[in-house]
Amino acid sequence: MKFLENGTVTSPQGFTAAGVIGSVKASNTTKRDIMMIASDTLCSTAAVFTKNLVKSSAILVTKKHIENGKAQAVIANSGNANTCNADGIEKAERMCELAAENLNINKDDVIVASTGVIGQVMPIEPFEKAVPEIAKLMSKDGGTNAAEAIMTTDTVKKEAAVEIELGGKTVTIGAVAKGSGMIHINMGTMLSFVTTDAAISSEMLASALSEAVEVSYNMVSVDGDTSTNDTLAILANGKAGNDEITTRNADYAVFTEALTELCKKMAKKLAGDGEGATKLIICSVDGAKTKFDAKGAAKAVICSSLVKAAIFGSDANWGRVLCAIGYSGCDIDVSKVDVSFVSDAGEIEVCKDGAGVDFSEETAKKILLENEITIKVSLNDGDGKAEAYGCDLTYDYVKINGDYRT
Amino acid sequence: MKFLENGTVTSPQGFTAAGVIGSVKASNTTKRDIMMIASDTLCSTAAVFTKNLVKSSAILVTKKHIENGKAQAVIANSGNANTCNADGIEKAERMCELAAENLNINKDDVIVASTGVIGQVMPIEPFEKAVPEIAKLMSKDGGTNAAEAIMTTDTVKKEAAVEIELGGKTVTIGAVAKGSGMIHINMGTMLSFVTTDAAISSEMLASALSEAVEVSYNMVSVDGDTSTNDTLAILANGKAGNDEITTRNADYAVFTEALTELCKKMAKKLAGDGEGATKLIICSVDGAKTKFDAKGAAKAVICSSLVKAAIFGSDANWGRVLCAIGYSGCDIDVSKVDVSFVSDAGEIEVCKDGAGVDFSEETAKKILLENEITIKVSLNDGDGKAEAYGCDLTYDYVKINGDYRT
Repeated sequence: MKFLENGTVTSPQGFTAAGVIGSVKASNTTKRDIMMIASDTLCSTAAVFTKNLVKSSAILVTKKHIENGKAQAVIANSGNANTCNADGIEKAERMCELAAENLNINKDDVIVASTGVIGQVMPIEPFEKAVPEIAKLMSKDGGTNAAEAIMTTDTVKKEAAVEIELGGKTVTIGAVAKGSGMIHINMGTMLSFVTTDAAISSEMLASALSEAVEVSYNMVSVDGDTSTNDTLAILANGKAGNDEITTRNADYAVFTEALTELCKKMAKKLAGDGEGATKLIICSVDGAKTKFDAKGAAKAVICSSLVKAAIFGSDANWGRVLCAIGYSGCDIDVSKVDVSFVSDAGEIEVCKDGAGVDFSEETAKKILLENEITIKVSLNDGDGKAEAYGCDLTYDYVKINGDYRT
Repeated sequence: MKFLENGTVTSPQGFTAAGVIGSVKASNTTKRDIMMIASDTLCSTAAVFTKNLVKSSAILVTKKHIENGKAQAVIANSGNANTCNADGIEKAERMCELAAENLNINKDDVIVASTGVIGQVMPIEPFEKAVPEIAKLMSKDGGTNAAEAIMTTDTVKKEAAVEIELGGKTVTIGAVAKGSGMIHINMGTMLSFVTTDAAISSEMLASALSEAVEVSYNMVSVDGDTSTNDTLAILANGKAGNDEITTRNADYAVFTEALTELCKKMAKKLAGDGEGATKLIICSVDGAKTKFDAKGAAKAVICSSLVKAAIFGSDANWGRVLCAIGYSGCDIDVSKVDVSFVSDAGEIEVCKDGAGVDFSEETAKKILLENEITIKVSLNDGDGKAEAYGCDLTYDYVKINGDYRT
């Protein structure tokens, strides 16, 4: 398995994409905000969505369209979430219709997703105008423009691709995502689209996606707010020519592992580029009684506002880590907990057997000044392991969210 | 029932208090940080503590001391939490011993509480020196100094007292609290001490306290972090001379109502003075299927970082309110939800039947610029009601917590 240089959602065979400036938010005249991704042929598909009861109309329409496990294209926009709108369904259906007409495919094979402000009427004119233009621009090089078109407060495009071999055939999996705010466990993203030229049934695709999500997007939190629009969809067009995966065989395992690593990479990109974030925080827990306890403890640590603010300040305030583990609801023995901070600048133990140890504040500061900080927690009480991904809490998070609508 | 002007924890008959500068944190030479509250006679007592598995040694000692439902004094400090320390129990016991010796009471009748940094060894010398001094200063006017001594990042002292009549006798209930950060549901405070001259059995006291807490301290969140040191204790010395309350009779109802109102007032003080807060946010939910659903929805709204940041920016971003209700886990029908923002400057409806309504952004801004904002949510689906208390998320929260230890 290897990650491709400049890999993107159009890296797999038979996929094209494009994104344009559609001015969905009238004030936007400089950033791409409408995009499409399409496969030359019909794909197996699977998707997971937000667990929020308040759901974007785009999700309701997409759910219906992929009921048969098939899809061929994605249309997505930033600038408006199409959520809590009386005519949202109608608008989402029209987006699919426009995509289908211009790509010459079936309307029911289109996945639609939106991200942006909740509760503002979705203007349809920008799509009527932009979609024909996008259809003309669809190309193998368009993945990166599609990545830009779904960004909101993201500061960097999020894309990657990975290559594996299945029965002598090269299989590629590509991904694009947007994240930033309103990001929380289940699932920790707003939008992500994954493409692959693997031949795989929609049942096995759903199973692989579910395994991958569990340890990647579902372990990310930026701010504890579960979005209304979270959508992660995967399309597999079979162009690689591998034997179709229809059972949990060896090829399934290789494919799932690659998909998992790709999703983990994307999850870290989301966390590290959380709204206002200056640092990626990884909480790595081992020695838990069960995997469930390890996950709960890791998530509590990366979700704690106090831990997040301390990391922003490069302050080795490990008491807040213990506090978060303590209220996580997990079955732990406090008197066995060890905590270390790790980064490219080194590793330092700050807590042993649930109590503080003497450590050099200077060394700790040096370690915590790095951009990627791992909080290593050993519970010394079993074999359960987990990792969760988050970011620091900064002035800029408050600034960005104090006045997002204007 | 009436609130007293300048009411405090020493307002009830037979209670005295004092607080001094003990320099528990060596760098502190200007703020009172050790205090005692004492009753002339032995009291019925009840208490509730944090549900965090990581608990201050002070809590473990207090739990043991009040097992018999009796106590006579409180010793408390700020500047060190006495949590995650190998010798914490020993130090907490010594604090009680010092209080008992100098107040001439039984060591097992002392309640001890600490608040401050977790995981730093508790220095005992400041107590050896300060406690004899405090004992000499104990007076009816000392309540306010005691309030100061438990403040950490609090910007104002939190104290109040209420007066009721029971069978022709005047009964007073007084309270002192500190809050600020690491404040979350169950229970939303760090330390609070309540005194009363009511005659009431410890069983009825525990019952009344539990009723009061449920709708006050347990409905407060500042930052979603449940502290390791939360302690709320009540002492009743019977000096008012009312017939002792030993069953859930009419006097019990009057007493519990007054205690509840007092705790609600303190809860709002805690929320409004949350770390870095500029505004108190009240989320008032009605029309829920059950009281449980109403509480869950109200809590989700005041806990949402995105709602909190929007209120800081006086931005009527009601979509985030819907989003929080949607992920609260409560049983709601999204299409029936109405939302209004209310303050001293007026009321404005922003969402009706789960979708946006046209409203004046100018009027909304005027309403949201006030210091106390009520987010009114009507679920229109039953009779369940609840209120939760929180605060906005500001630059100062990040600043305070980015480098708290130094």
